Amino acid sequence: MPVYVPAQRQPKELFPGALSRTFWGDKMLFSLLDLAAGSVVPRHSHPHEQAGIVLEGELEFTIGDETHLVKAGEIFFIPGGVEHSVKVGAQPAKALDVFSPVREEYKWA
Amino acid sequence: MPVYVPAQRQPKELFPGALSRTFWGDKMLFSLLDLAAGSVVPRHSHPHEQAGIVLEGELEFTIGDETHLVKAGEIFFIPGGVEHSVKVGAQPAKALDVFSPVREEYKWA
Repeated sequence: MPVYVPAQRQPKELFPGALSRTFWGDKMLFSLLDLAAGSVVPRHSHPHEQAGIVLEGELEFTIGDETHLVKAGEIFFIPGGVEHSVKVGAQPAKALDVFSPVREEYKWA
Repeated sequence: MPVYVPAQRQPKELFPGALSRTFWGDKMLFSLLDLAAGSVVPRHSHPHEQAGIVLEGELEFTIGDETHLVKAGEIFFIPGGVEHSVKVGAQPAKALDVFSPVREEYKWA
């Protein structure tokens, strides 16, 4: 069944205030995020390429040494191995993160 | 510059009624689609894995022999090599398609 309704999928708390629902194929994993206002994803890196779109609200990304405000409808790409962090704005936010290759440790359902 | 504002990117008409703006890294290509009501993406296949999210409206996907109505907020995965087609509903729609590996022929800016 290749079509998924996120509300039917159990979320996992990835970071405090960051709920993730994940979906995957052979080459990509989607992480659909519900982010509490003011929550923070601490600086980290992984070998996987990460890209995504902000669906609601605003996220302040620091990617390497640059900080960018990413608004709803805007798209970001983070090369594999580059350190990054995220601060959620004053309103709750939603975003879709996509990882390639698949992050095996993010396969929860 | 890893952050993109789609409105600043020139679209290309991928199929009649289907405007695409593309963004890419090393492993993934994003195609952000504005789809006219009633438009059709004819049955086709490609070796790339395709996954995505419907952002607005409804899309009727036929993936292999199964037909699925995919609504805003829902997610789809299409394995590489599997034939698929799309019919847009009675309202305009928006969707994000993600391809891995990168579809080289979709690199327009």
